[in-house]
Amino acid sequence: MQLSLSTWTDIEQYLKTSDAIIIPIGSMEQHGPTGLIGTDAICPEVIAKRVGDEHGVLIGPTFNVGCAQHHLGFPGTMTLRPSTMIAAIADWSLSLAKHGFKKLYWFNGHGGNTATIQAAFAEVYAQRSFEPSPARQPALRMTSKNWWELPSVMAKCKELHPSGDGMHATASEVAVTYAAYPDQVRNQTLEPKIAPIGSFTDAEHYRANFPDGRIGSDPTQATIEAGNTIIDVTAQALWADFQKFAQS
Amino acid sequence: MQLSLSTWTDIEQYLKTSDAIIIPIGSMEQHGPTGLIGTDAICPEVIAKRVGDEHGVLIGPTFNVGCAQHHLGFPGTMTLRPSTMIAAIADWSLSLAKHGFKKLYWFNGHGGNTATIQAAFAEVYAQRSFEPSPARQPALRMTSKNWWELPSVMAKCKELHPSGDGMHATASEVAVTYAAYPDQVRNQTLEPKIAPIGSFTDAEHYRANFPDGRIGSDPTQATIEAGNTIIDVTAQALWADFQKFAQS
Amino acid sequence: MQLSLSTWTDIEQYLKTSDAIIIPIGSMEQHGPTGLIGTDAICPEVIAKRVGDEHGVLIGPTFNVGCAQHHLGFPGTMTLRPSTMIAAIADWSLSLAKHGFKKLYWFNGHGGNTATIQAAFAEVYAQRSFEPSPARQPALRMTSKNWWELPSVMAKCKELHPSGDGMHATASEVAVTYAAYPDQVRNQTLEPKIAPIGSFTDAEHYRANFPDGRIGSDPTQATIEAGNTIIDVTAQALWADFQKFAQS
Amino acid sequence: MQLSLSTWTDIEQYLKTSDAIIIPIGSMEQHGPTGLIGTDAICPEVIAKRVGDEHGVLIGPTFNVGCAQHHLGFPGTMTLRPSTMIAAIADWSLSLAKHGFKKLYWFNGHGGNTATIQAAFAEVYAQRSFEPSPARQPALRMTSKNWWELPSVMAKCKELHPSGDGMHATASEVAVTYAAYPDQVRNQTLEPKIAPIGSFTDAEHYRANFPDGRIGSDPTQATIEAGNTIIDVTAQALWADFQKFAQS
Amino acid sequence: MQLSLSTWTDIEQYLKTSDAIIIPIGSMEQHGPTGLIGTDAICPEVIAKRVGDEHGVLIGPTFNVGCAQHHLGFPGTMTLRPSTMIAAIADWSLSLAKHGFKKLYWFNGHGGNTATIQAAFAEVYAQRSFEPSPARQPALRMTSKNWWELPSVMAKCKELHPSGDGMHATASEVAVTYAAYPDQVRNQTLEPKIAPIGSFTDAEHYRANFPDGRIGSDPTQATIEAGNTIIDVTAQALWADFQKFAQS
Amino acid sequence: MQLSLSTWTDIEQYLKTSDAIIIPIGSMEQHGPTGLIGTDAICPEVIAKRVGDEHGVLIGPTFNVGCAQHHLGFPGTMTLRPSTMIAAIADWSLSLAKHGFKKLYWFNGHGGNTATIQAAFAEVYAQRSFEPSPARQPALRMTSKNWWELPSVMAKCKELHPSGDGMHATASEVAVTYAAYPDQVRNQTLEPKIAPIGSFTDAEHYRANFPDGRIGSDPTQATIEAGNTIIDVTAQALWADFQKFAQS
Repeated sequence: MQLSLSTWTDIEQYLKTSDAIIIPIGSMEQHGPTGLIGTDAICPEVIAKRVGDEHGVLIGPTFNVGCAQHHLGFPGTMTLRPSTMIAAIADWSLSLAKHGFKKLYWFNGHGGNTATIQAAFAEVYAQRSFEPSPARQPALRMTSKNWWELPSVMAKCKELHPSGDGMHATASEVAVTYAAYPDQVRNQTLEPKIAPIGSFTDAEHYRANFPDGRIGSDPTQATIEAGNTIIDVTAQALWADFQKFAQS
Repeated sequence: MQLSLSTWTDIEQYLKTSDAIIIPIGSMEQHGPTGLIGTDAICPEVIAKRVGDEHGVLIGPTFNVGCAQHHLGFPGTMTLRPSTMIAAIADWSLSLAKHGFKKLYWFNGHGGNTATIQAAFAEVYAQRSFEPSPARQPALRMTSKNWWELPSVMAKCKELHPSGDGMHATASEVAVTYAAYPDQVRNQTLEPKIAPIGSFTDAEHYRANFPDGRIGSDPTQATIEAGNTIIDVTAQALWADFQKFAQS
Repeated sequence: MQLSLSTWTDIEQYLKTSDAIIIPIGSMEQHGPTGLIGTDAICPEVIAKRVGDEHGVLIGPTFNVGCAQHHLGFPGTMTLRPSTMIAAIADWSLSLAKHGFKKLYWFNGHGGNTATIQAAFAEVYAQRSFEPSPARQPALRMTSKNWWELPSVMAKCKELHPSGDGMHATASEVAVTYAAYPDQVRNQTLEPKIAPIGSFTDAEHYRANFPDGRIGSDPTQATIEAGNTIIDVTAQALWADFQKFAQS
Repeated sequence: MQLSLSTWTDIEQYLKTSDAIIIPIGSMEQHGPTGLIGTDAICPEVIAKRVGDEHGVLIGPTFNVGCAQHHLGFPGTMTLRPSTMIAAIADWSLSLAKHGFKKLYWFNGHGGNTATIQAAFAEVYAQRSFEPSPARQPALRMTSKNWWELPSVMAKCKELHPSGDGMHATASEVAVTYAAYPDQVRNQTLEPKIAPIGSFTDAEHYRANFPDGRIGSDPTQATIEAGNTIIDVTAQALWADFQKFAQS
Repeated sequence: MQLSLSTWTDIEQYLKTSDAIIIPIGSMEQHGPTGLIGTDAICPEVIAKRVGDEHGVLIGPTFNVGCAQHHLGFPGTMTLRPSTMIAAIADWSLSLAKHGFKKLYWFNGHGGNTATIQAAFAEVYAQRSFEPSPARQPALRMTSKNWWELPSVMAKCKELHPSGDGMHATASEVAVTYAAYPDQVRNQTLEPKIAPIGSFTDAEHYRANFPDGRIGSDPTQATIEAGNTIIDVTAQALWADFQKFAQS
Repeated sequence: MQLSLSTWTDIEQYLKTSDAIIIPIGSMEQHGPTGLIGTDAICPEVIAKRVGDEHGVLIGPTFNVGCAQHHLGFPGTMTLRPSTMIAAIADWSLSLAKHGFKKLYWFNGHGGNTATIQAAFAEVYAQRSFEPSPARQPALRMTSKNWWELPSVMAKCKELHPSGDGMHATASEVAVTYAAYPDQVRNQTLEPKIAPIGSFTDAEHYRANFPDGRIGSDPTQATIEAGNTIIDVTAQALWADFQKFAQS
């Protein structure tokens, strides 16, 4: 069940049995020469929709542009400043709270978003804390999970790609996008086969250290089949984790 | 060609021949008992993708939550505060400008967004105006068009729905979403058949005046077929209008 | 009755019979070689004061600097960034609401302000929407009207200036300012007599396309007499429109 | 010479001989039962215009709503939040700097504005300081003066009103507004004749301590004649002070 | 008693007998060739801690970086933009109000902070004023005092340094820091012995006018002994002034 | 070497040999019934000063109030909203960059700060990324380290407190503060001896789950001796880590 494909009467009905929602959150940023710019939005979106379809959980619209300053050295990357992202997450959250949602599960596809998502939660909570006691509204509970950190997901990724799964433009995430968009499979050799690893500060520094955008990965081993496996495993893990949250 | 489904090397290539992009921009808001909450995001997205597919124009990610304060009286509606939306549009624009895009065509699906989009343009322009002369960056040119206002589109909508096309949750926009998502067609009678018209200020006032969310419309006449016709006509109009802008 | 020329006890008295106020809102921006920079503030101010004097309606101070980024290519133009203007309109509105005003009628003299005024209304409404239900304060109702769009005003302007009334630095608005400040009448020929028309994006683009600042107008035909006629007609239209709003 | 009553070509001409401007800045706030809400905007406006008329100095539009939180307990008072006022003063300043103005003389009518005006200057200066060296723009120089603190002004006020000139709603400032708007003279006895003095924190505290709004003043002794005298003396002092600033 | 060295149970206890707190507020900015960059933070901190130790008053953490834009021409100076400082003071204040503190005494060591502190108070008060009546929270009362302006302090400073105490990097404030950090005494001759006086606008202007950072002072006469005397006198004055505030 | 205890000429000298600085960053928040509210500021401050004293590294002022919304349920806790903290970190950073510092090492004492610190870095970097290429200023490089995560520190903490070191109000951090402030050692039994563990969302949720503020810890085992050991070990690790950063 997707919010974007529901009517307001559908949502009114949904709220009678649940006050929890999953919101995919990603990024528009380079993922190497063979990975799609939308990778980090596509992965959580595809997995969340699977859970929404199978279990009737409500899936919000995808928060598709996130914090990708460090990838701005590569054409096509888009970013919000963190202060903008905090304001936007707050507005999405307060809109949903207005209707009676009390548990927001942000399902994240981009490690670079994590910090700002946490900051946004604290911003929303602080607004309520600064209110006089007793506060007039029920508390909003928010959590954020990275899809690859759900139980058993990383193990499956390593099993599928024992070497060169990597840290950015990973074989696993590229596989998920190929499964989602089979006509976007890119066949191309990359040099070096496995990209270098290391750290970085800003966009210039990143591009200087990782000239084709990848970190530690060999995404050429990504297959549609592996992608489908990862989606299956992650969707199960998400469903289990979300249920715990919704009942907490 | 979609930015989200491109690699950074694709975009690098694209920028050699064009510095223009189309960005669909919509809203998540109630569209009456039979219209989808995502209607205003779906319409420009579907039409823009058509043009992207047929003519190789780059289509950006969809800016999917806009200014819908006045619909917050209905469950599922989400909004940005205008100040947040201005900041977000500025960030999207400056990200694209960083890569060399100089002409941003925001293709809009929600009348309630128009004011804030214009305000956002002025915000971006003002930042550059306040710089010392001569400014160090080439000017960014931005335009915004509502899909139903492109030449010949409204005429076609009126031809398809001579009465009760309406102002909100229109038969035409609902038809476009049914064409895009055929499994979401809702068959339901509405009472009154054609919703009342009138004006409104805030969300409470809106809900009081328009109890089921529609304004002046009878969306039950929406069909997949009509939706496809509107997509065809509007895609042609968009392509023509965008070309003029890209070459200006 | 002007707020600026009232005592607080006068306002206390006024609030016993009315909770509505008219606030003139304009701009400081070039109006061609013969038009005053304050034109867009002067027009609504003069017309509103007429109504205030004749009917005892309270007229707020004039919001005199608005959104004029696109005129910054001409000396003397001043602008607020839209985000600043939203904050300022919100503060003015909340100040008035504090005292019991519930209906704010913003009487606008500058087309370039319209978008940001609408955005500001949504910002103020959103703040209340994000509050828990039931909201603790009575709703604030806000509207904005451009003086030249009130019933019968444009017809009169066209009658007075059948050709070359134009879009910016119009003969009609210049006439109103000459009627208000007779010692400021400028007698000067302009070349071309009627300025070109067209579109624009930012300040540089505007100045390049419209070198003396006018768009489509021949303001040399402006007379004090015509200005007085326009003030008469518009003041009547304002009074009628405001009454409807105040009683809504 | 007033910016609002000038054309852009007038300003272009003015900038050939001067890069300095005077900007009146005031407040909309209660001034006791006999003082006008606009008092603090009217005083600097009237005095500055006098100097503008006599010496050809450019006078900007009046910044008419300032920081008056502490007067919000009285109907009609309007305030900006300080953060809004800082943003607005920055926008006004950067607009003028864009055209080549380098010296901005803010002529202030409200003690409660002083802090925020100074903060705004530091905000504008800081933006430039945070730029890399060497900065690309010539420095902007800003000063703010309270009219009653110009040399010899306070002495004249005390001479005219030896007792009960006071701190708020002073006999002197009320006299200036009566001179400016002779039809607004209010004849009313006040009880006590001289209002109490003391300190305050917020609006509630203010109203509790100063029930009719005055502090330490007896404005009933204000006369048109005294107002004219004060305008004369202050205009001379302003002209002298401004010249020093413009040549610094 | 220092908040930073207390447990939360200590504070719970304290709040049973007092709702007032002293918060030292300073700056990190150059103080001439012999004065410490932390001078303006050290002075109020040392004096406040003395009062906290002697009388059991709660002393908050030191707000250590303030408004020092005008000193940015000298290495080591740090500043907040005024808009940031307003937000930070608001957050500190609302945090303390959350626990039941109702009287905040900001004990200031830097003249350049005064304006922004006052602006911050008005920002906090305005937020409450814009709430509907009756407000749901008890009023917060805030005051700010510069240590050198407390009764009898300046007299003592002048007695200790009859000539060349000065306006910035004063002999008195440097003496206080030497008393606080005896191992930081700098013995150095300065040329000229007494620095020039004058006014300034931004950082460049300041450095041009006051090349070694001092204004009107000869800090070489600062001694540990004088510093201790000033601390004694000021601590007594602070205690007296704070008591009045706490009981108001 | 501490910035607060240096003169501007000291810093001018320092910048000739180094462009790197360590800035302690902490929090004011409850640390259980026996831990000091300033714990998270004291720990990095004490350790950094040790390194500053031993190796001549410049130590900035302590950023003492951070993100502690989740502890606001306990008296004395203070927090910044994340948006405020981002602005403040940006201002501190740009001030230092102005003088030629290029490498900022934020030495953090509070896990709850991590997200917002990272967001602040991205905010500062984004501002530069949005500038036209080539950027006019040298890149600023920023890193943040939590003291307990430096190599070998956690091992030492676990060795000293094999059980009940915990997650909040840990025996180790309390030991460090006792070493720093021996007169603040609190001898008190806690019930239960080892606090519960678990997760939390906002301040109310935290207090409900962890009634005395501790998470998983038994801080009663903290000793001055253990604190000194931890300071020694961590200072060595910090010096090693900082050198690598400064030379990168």
